[in-house]
Amino acid sequence: MLLRNTESCKGELRVSTSFVTGWPLSRQEQIKSFLRVHNLLAWIAWRPDELLMLSGYFPFWGASLLVYFADAEPVLFVPQIEPRDHIRNGLRVQEYPWGDLKCVDPYSELVSAVGDRLVRNKVNPEEVGMNPSAFRTSLPIQAAEQIPIPEGFAGHLSALGAKQSADIADLYLRKTSEEIEAIRLANRVANIGLQAFSENSQPGATEAEVAAAVESIIYRQIGRDGIFHSRGWAMVQSGPNSADAGRFNRSTGRRLTNGDLVLIELATCVNGYWSDLTRTVAVGRPQAEVAEILDLARDAQEAAVEAVAPGVAAERIDAMARDRIAERGLSSFFTHHTGHHVGFRYHDPGFLILPGESAVLEPGMVITIEPGIYVHERGAGARIEDNVLVTESGHEVLSRTGGEKL
Amino acid sequence: MLLRNTESCKGELRVSTSFVTGWPLSRQEQIKSFLRVHNLLAWIAWRPDELLMLSGYFPFWGASLLVYFADAEPVLFVPQIEPRDHIRNGLRVQEYPWGDLKCVDPYSELVSAVGDRLVRNKVNPEEVGMNPSAFRTSLPIQAAEQIPIPEGFAGHLSALGAKQSADIADLYLRKTSEEIEAIRLANRVANIGLQAFSENSQPGATEAEVAAAVESIIYRQIGRDGIFHSRGWAMVQSGPNSADAGRFNRSTGRRLTNGDLVLIELATCVNGYWSDLTRTVAVGRPQAEVAEILDLARDAQEAAVEAVAPGVAAERIDAMARDRIAERGLSSFFTHHTGHHVGFRYHDPGFLILPGESAVLEPGMVITIEPGIYVHERGAGARIEDNVLVTESGHEVLSRTGGEKL
Repeated sequence: MLLRNTESCKGELRVSTSFVTGWPLSRQEQIKSFLRVHNLLAWIAWRPDELLMLSGYFPFWGASLLVYFADAEPVLFVPQIEPRDHIRNGLRVQEYPWGDLKCVDPYSELVSAVGDRLVRNKVNPEEVGMNPSAFRTSLPIQAAEQIPIPEGFAGHLSALGAKQSADIADLYLRKTSEEIEAIRLANRVANIGLQAFSENSQPGATEAEVAAAVESIIYRQIGRDGIFHSRGWAMVQSGPNSADAGRFNRSTGRRLTNGDLVLIELATCVNGYWSDLTRTVAVGRPQAEVAEILDLARDAQEAAVEAVAPGVAAERIDAMARDRIAERGLSSFFTHHTGHHVGFRYHDPGFLILPGESAVLEPGMVITIEPGIYVHERGAGARIEDNVLVTESGHEVLSRTGGEKL
Repeated sequence: MLLRNTESCKGELRVSTSFVTGWPLSRQEQIKSFLRVHNLLAWIAWRPDELLMLSGYFPFWGASLLVYFADAEPVLFVPQIEPRDHIRNGLRVQEYPWGDLKCVDPYSELVSAVGDRLVRNKVNPEEVGMNPSAFRTSLPIQAAEQIPIPEGFAGHLSALGAKQSADIADLYLRKTSEEIEAIRLANRVANIGLQAFSENSQPGATEAEVAAAVESIIYRQIGRDGIFHSRGWAMVQSGPNSADAGRFNRSTGRRLTNGDLVLIELATCVNGYWSDLTRTVAVGRPQAEVAEILDLARDAQEAAVEAVAPGVAAERIDAMARDRIAERGLSSFFTHHTGHHVGFRYHDPGFLILPGESAVLEPGMVITIEPGIYVHERGAGARIEDNVLVTESGHEVLSRTGGEKL
């Protein structure tokens, strides 16, 4: 993907080359290259995952905004009600009022402060980029509602001249060493939740009770190991419900029963960085035709994981899993892709791991590997999902740590 | 607010009158009036809380869309991966493909299906309204990321002709009997969580541990009493952290200590309907100057709740709490509004309960009453928040039920 973008920009081959061969590339180098390639002097970010990627800061309310300058230090605009203790040292912060009692409109003050800052840094508004879409972005730490970007906010910013064309999605693809450590921590916390999943998957428990136990222990990690935000979204499906897990995930009041497969889809956000995992376990002794589904899902997943390495095409990884399932005549029950990028979001932007996708894995990419088999006729479905880092020589499964305490 | 809108539309006084005197007015009557007042033949809804209000349906993925016709039955467009068992009987549902493996673009198929439906119903696209903003809307049932409305989706719809001007916010203000029952259920579930808050607020527990216990028991209610979705977002602040609760809410790893005030801000969503509650308790015996804050917050809240009745202006409710706090010389520590509308969202649109707001309460409105006092010098803050229904003769506190099991 990076190659495609940079090759279309003549005179930028040096950038293209460094993207491919140099890793880890610092986040700052990646952003500066992006700005150069798109002839931008600044980038305005307000989506939580974009703020995290560009500055390491994850917003509380989702009402913060970062202006990243090509030739000056970035400025983070934060509403005055927001705590500061998780903002990195050295990042320049400008507070803006958050009106409530006085009924001021904080956003117009924010837009005007951003405009002033552009003028002060002698940046022509036509050379500023932004992405106005909230499509699938992270929620802020206060995760109970969509981010409070009001009607017309993007419009006001574009009235400043911000272009909404350049696509920042490629910047999500290759994580830095520091970001990988943060994603590793999210996976460690997720595994504590998965340990609770195994322990609580007992006959008589409802799906919702199992999911609640998982989310609870993930939340409880706050305060340990520098964790200021830890939240899980667990969806548990058992028995016949697991056969629906290829189409949707949710927990119901169904009670687990001996012979069930039980599947958990678990999103975990720790300090803004994400893990996306799935496990399937058997309760008691399932029938052979049910056990076969779980065994095959494990085999297919392992085969795809083993194939992850730099230079390998996404479709090749997908085929490793898909062919294994096809050999057993069950290919029509594997209905979705094999994986996607992950780390800054539950679902990072970028190419998918699926048939026909020729994009190639590069060091620093973190992808999910998650083949699944869902057979309504057998009342069972299984999916195994790990988060896999592409290294310079092969891969590392970030999600295969024990469920040990932090 | 409703009066203001309808009075500006000549010839619609009958509608205006019925809005004021008739209650409960069915949701259908309210929507039809709204369409008439704005000269619209249809409304396109895609925000989760708007779908809920217009059809009783709460989306799983957030990728559903409703076309509500003035003169024909509404049509709900749902992606094929979505479960159907929580969609009301009698609602017309049209499935659209959700491409993944085949890499189709589901949204362009959706937009074209909506266009076809408008043509079939002989609705001129210029007479269709919509609201393109995701500002503070509900999250769908799968709550881990912002709704998957892609870049350009609103633009495609407006290319169909949908106007983005008419403001549907007024429709959130007056709840129907059925909606009030749903909000009551959300409050009952929230109270089960608050019972866990009281029980777990013991010396030595971390704020995060207390919050996790609350969220866990709320999730566990799925499967009881027709509950298919139940999720809480609990933020617990103790001791000196409680003094920050007027600016932001979050749980940390701080351990509760004898003498603390402990505050919980709790958002609860049950089947799409919301409760927004705050409680403050003391651990052990706080010092007199700390206890005074809690006592005063309780007094002020009770005074404001008692004043809630139809015909009373918002500023009058606010003054009941604010004056009580001012009498004790602490007015500068009550820094926010006294309340807001609630029910379809964590924060419904509509007027706030604060100084200078002359809008008048009407039967069917559900508001929060949540004065707070936050004194850094005393290392303590307190807020009490209930959800209060305006009835024809006065009010009913929906959130004062016991924490009994469902």
